[in-house]
Amino acid sequence: MVKYNREEQIASVRGALALRSEIEKIVDSYCNEDFRNLCYLGIGGTWASCLQAVVHMKERTDRDVFAANAAEYNTTGDRRVGRGTVVVISSVTGTTVEIVAGVRKAQADGAKVIGFVDNADCELAGMVDNCITYKSNEQLKFFMTADRFMFNWGEMDEYEEFYGQMDKYLPEGLVEIEEKADSFGEEYAKAHLNDRLHYFVGAGTMYGATYSYAMCYWEEMHWIRTKSIHSAEFFHGMLEIIDDDTPVTLFVTEDSQRSLSERVARFLPKINHNHTVIDAADYPIEGIDAKFRGNISHLIIHAVTNRIDAHLEAIGGHDMTIRRYYRKFDY
Amino acid sequence: MVKYNREEQIASVRGALALRSEIEKIVDSYCNEDFRNLCYLGIGGTWASCLQAVVHMKERTDRDVFAANAAEYNTTGDRRVGRGTVVVISSVTGTTVEIVAGVRKAQADGAKVIGFVDNADCELAGMVDNCITYKSNEQLKFFMTADRFMFNWGEMDEYEEFYGQMDKYLPEGLVEIEEKADSFGEEYAKAHLNDRLHYFVGAGTMYGATYSYAMCYWEEMHWIRTKSIHSAEFFHGMLEIIDDDTPVTLFVTEDSQRSLSERVARFLPKINHNHTVIDAADYPIEGIDAKFRGNISHLIIHAVTNRIDAHLEAIGGHDMTIRRYYRKFDY
Repeated sequence: MVKYNREEQIASVRGALALRSEIEKIVDSYCNEDFRNLCYLGIGGTWASCLQAVVHMKERTDRDVFAANAAEYNTTGDRRVGRGTVVVISSVTGTTVEIVAGVRKAQADGAKVIGFVDNADCELAGMVDNCITYKSNEQLKFFMTADRFMFNWGEMDEYEEFYGQMDKYLPEGLVEIEEKADSFGEEYAKAHLNDRLHYFVGAGTMYGATYSYAMCYWEEMHWIRTKSIHSAEFFHGMLEIIDDDTPVTLFVTEDSQRSLSERVARFLPKINHNHTVIDAADYPIEGIDAKFRGNISHLIIHAVTNRIDAHLEAIGGHDMTIRRYYRKFDY
Repeated sequence: MVKYNREEQIASVRGALALRSEIEKIVDSYCNEDFRNLCYLGIGGTWASCLQAVVHMKERTDRDVFAANAAEYNTTGDRRVGRGTVVVISSVTGTTVEIVAGVRKAQADGAKVIGFVDNADCELAGMVDNCITYKSNEQLKFFMTADRFMFNWGEMDEYEEFYGQMDKYLPEGLVEIEEKADSFGEEYAKAHLNDRLHYFVGAGTMYGATYSYAMCYWEEMHWIRTKSIHSAEFFHGMLEIIDDDTPVTLFVTEDSQRSLSERVARFLPKINHNHTVIDAADYPIEGIDAKFRGNISHLIIHAVTNRIDAHLEAIGGHDMTIRRYYRKFDY
């Protein structure tokens, strides 16, 4: 399999899951009477991950939990962020200007910041109140943080059972999905490599990932044009420009918003013959209960799109690490 | 001027502003100790207006104010909506299924609903707790509601002064902008009528409008493909697929997020020769103070895009009222 290292992938997810005791200690320290609200703060791809974590929490929580876009927070502000606020951020390089400024502002406003900063040597790693350094697996880090908060608030009684299964079955489960999806990924990459514009549709915990898959992978890494849209919003305008041959990919989750994407799945065949449905339900993971599937839909679909990306790069020859403009000059 | 009736336009805005006493009475009745939070609930175009109202309020308010997408609320839920919640909705026909279901759910959860329902005879008009019936001007209705809440909360001391100027100068001011922008609108429409894909970029109170202008006007009404993006997010992926001749339109507001769009305005000329900047600051309205300009940027830009739409329809011959799929069959 191209661009694939089974053992590395397993170790990566296993290592992320092993962060849990560290995450628990940090989250537990904030679950006291001073706690007021929880803010996931991001920009670009990390903003998308914030949206995912928040929609996951909304299914269960009574607490004040929200996502804030760092650039908007730095300009318009958000007065909910202050004393008693726990801010969660993620940064690979630690040098994203909006995040550095956002953390500074949040702390000045009285908030505490939990930072997943992959590069331990950057300024940001030293700035945040709690720093966890581990490569990749951003969604898993965000969701583990979310789940621990909800467990402490009495809103996720199944926490231990769920993470027991995750620890045991997720790492191998995801690589098995990559292996199962590899030939599909190759066919799909061949079919869509030269698309002039590709539409991605998704909802629930997958909406943020649909947005970032379209923008951070296809646009930024593959240089293929996309539009992403929420499955519910698809019916309020965008549907009109779908022709018979317009390339559309629909991601279907097993979470609370599954019905919104199923509606798109029923509609598309009536007007279009160039769409692909990637349904998390088609990729079981042995050992993880049906009742927990909604929590991991986005990880399952990510395993599938990983194979698309690998083949797009291999067949198209466009190196995913090359940027035209991003951080290439001052702007 | 094509598709233009000066007196009708003036009367429409004047009539919307005249709703203020009715809005004030309703809002005032909710500003008591039972108030807990304020939720703008929408879908598609009205969802976009919700985003606009909320970013406007965030500049000033300490209160818990948020936008909820009706389809997401109906599926995932939002436990912040309940007793003490005031929900604000808008509907032209009153028959949008997500809104009808959302209002029913919000009321069942204990919330009160203020509805701007243009059609007084529909079921929705009878369902909401307070119904205001007046055609068009959705953003104005939403912002007037927002401002009255903030005035009552002591967060908008300039309320009377601002609306004094609005009542006196906005209706004529907006038609004068339409007249000033007409020849620009015609040139722009000629240049972009046959675009295969047009990018719209905006921030602040204009972000929601950028999203809905792209989707509800160009995609739904003109059948031209678009992608819309927040000015800050533009730099986190989408920039990579902008070629020298890619059509891009940037909306620049005079509100708290002006700097985010100015950054895009500085960047675009370095890589692209087919972009248009529509800056609210280029369209003064005599009688409305500089300090209030940020409150009306979206109305000013809407007056400009009105002229684009009129000419796109006139030159292209594609009737904006025709739909291919929307409400044409069950889905």
